[in-house]
Amino acid sequence: MADKVHDVIMIGAGPTSLAAAVYTSREDIETLIFEKGIIGGLAAITDQIDNYPGFEEGIEGLQLAEKLQKQAERFGATIELGEVQSVKKDGDVFSLSTTSGELQAKTLLIGTGSEWKKLKIPGEDDFYGRGVHNCATCDGAFYRDKKLVVVGGGNSSAQEALFLTKFASHIDILIRGDKWKASDVLVDEAEKNDKITVHFNTTTDEIVGGDENKVTAVKGTKDGQETTFEVDGVFVFIGLKPVTYFLEGSGVELDEYGFVKTNHKLMTNVPGIFCAGDVRSGATMQIAAAVGEGAAAALSIREYLENYQREMIPNGNGQD
Amino acid sequence: MADKVHDVIMIGAGPTSLAAAVYTSREDIETLIFEKGIIGGLAAITDQIDNYPGFEEGIEGLQLAEKLQKQAERFGATIELGEVQSVKKDGDVFSLSTTSGELQAKTLLIGTGSEWKKLKIPGEDDFYGRGVHNCATCDGAFYRDKKLVVVGGGNSSAQEALFLTKFASHIDILIRGDKWKASDVLVDEAEKNDKITVHFNTTTDEIVGGDENKVTAVKGTKDGQETTFEVDGVFVFIGLKPVTYFLEGSGVELDEYGFVKTNHKLMTNVPGIFCAGDVRSGATMQIAAAVGEGAAAALSIREYLENYQREMIPNGNGQD
Repeated sequence: MADKVHDVIMIGAGPTSLAAAVYTSREDIETLIFEKGIIGGLAAITDQIDNYPGFEEGIEGLQLAEKLQKQAERFGATIELGEVQSVKKDGDVFSLSTTSGELQAKTLLIGTGSEWKKLKIPGEDDFYGRGVHNCATCDGAFYRDKKLVVVGGGNSSAQEALFLTKFASHIDILIRGDKWKASDVLVDEAEKNDKITVHFNTTTDEIVGGDENKVTAVKGTKDGQETTFEVDGVFVFIGLKPVTYFLEGSGVELDEYGFVKTNHKLMTNVPGIFCAGDVRSGATMQIAAAVGEGAAAALSIREYLENYQREMIPNGNGQD
Repeated sequence: MADKVHDVIMIGAGPTSLAAAVYTSREDIETLIFEKGIIGGLAAITDQIDNYPGFEEGIEGLQLAEKLQKQAERFGATIELGEVQSVKKDGDVFSLSTTSGELQAKTLLIGTGSEWKKLKIPGEDDFYGRGVHNCATCDGAFYRDKKLVVVGGGNSSAQEALFLTKFASHIDILIRGDKWKASDVLVDEAEKNDKITVHFNTTTDEIVGGDENKVTAVKGTKDGQETTFEVDGVFVFIGLKPVTYFLEGSGVELDEYGFVKTNHKLMTNVPGIFCAGDVRSGATMQIAAAVGEGAAAALSIREYLENYQREMIPNGNGQD
């Protein structure tokens, strides 16, 4: 049993929770943030962020993440590293099974965001982290003067491929469909970059390694013809998947794509469990929006806790 | 007639529109922002902002406003000073009557925010701006070693009164109800400040001036008894009112309090007219949320314009 009941535990330390924690901890709502990976979330592994409002010349993702973390900690929020495995309602509180043991809280904020989808093809897992990557900022520099494949036709694919041209000598972008699903400005920039070749109607079928356990090629099918791209690495950006596995059995309702459903107060169907950011149904996948929703969720959490203190609602009803 | 149809006209140059404009103009959506007052909106007239995520030590409101403006302008947004008087649908475009003449746009973003409510008592209008104020940052310094009344029991009242203690020798806070409607941390700080006296159950009835056309007293009723507070100035923070007068006749639907109703894409009931920030029904009145909604609205505007270019929708239907 946990020996302490936290006011709020925020799951995931991305911009959503860090923004929410600025609000809650500043209002003396005791706040614990739990993170299994990187503080700052996807923002922290983004090279340059030009569209987070307030930084007129843009800001490095890692620097923004650090600023958000410091600001949350300044008001007293605690960040702990570890993984939440499951969540269940336990009388008046929520119990969380985590790699740091059992934790309890009066309210929860789900701010776990989304993670990159896998291709699910031979070789992908074998070479993951040493030839197959999802983060150009983290791993791009290993490919100085090397050749790369980038998989995907969305904004991330275009943006990360452009960033990778800093290092790579050439990049083949493999797009399954017959057109981009990215913004015009990124597409223009990618297509006129002479280090980049774009291949439409091209599936990515297998990642092939050589003797030294390194990637040597990507096998694909272009317009029905098998094709081999001789490259040293592969960066995969084929979409994001909401991180919700720990909610199994919690009763929290998800939408058809697996994102967490909320009401206009950012509360889930389980009173006391709130959700904001990239894991939320309807999310725009923008840092500004995640931060804005984090702030709004914090206000809802405060309101919920005010009622909670007042009546210790036994069955979680009457919250609105 | 206007000789140019803008992609989007944003009404109001607060954090909402400036954030949205970073997104739209960066994507080559031609963006005009129209502002009748101060660029940066209420943020610009706030002394210190501690809870806008990304500034770990806080930031001055005016400085944040300037950063937002520079960032929007960096990507090509244009800001024009003037007042929008009315909005109407005119075939495929929206026509705006403004103090700079007739303007036309394919889409509109309503980002006018909210403004301070008035007490509607004798003397308020007579002394407005020279004894009666809504902005401590702007006008507080005029009251060095003077006595003040602050009216209101919410967060703004507590926060601004605390700020005014930098200058004033004493502050009476007049609250109509029998308790604060502000956050505990602000209430604690205000109540333990020895320059501040809080009066509950107290109405503010009249603002009285002397011979030199200066405020000399505030007449009120405390617990049923007439009371006079001899002060040099009054700061009124009794709530915000959404700025929507220019929407009369536009067909845009408002909620029962006069805020603009939107769907989950931040579009109003009139296809092509979007709304975000403090003027929107359900707004949290936080800069972070306004900025987040501005970013989300920009994505919806982009999506709408993509369909618009494709089919020049004659009656504005089929937008979802």
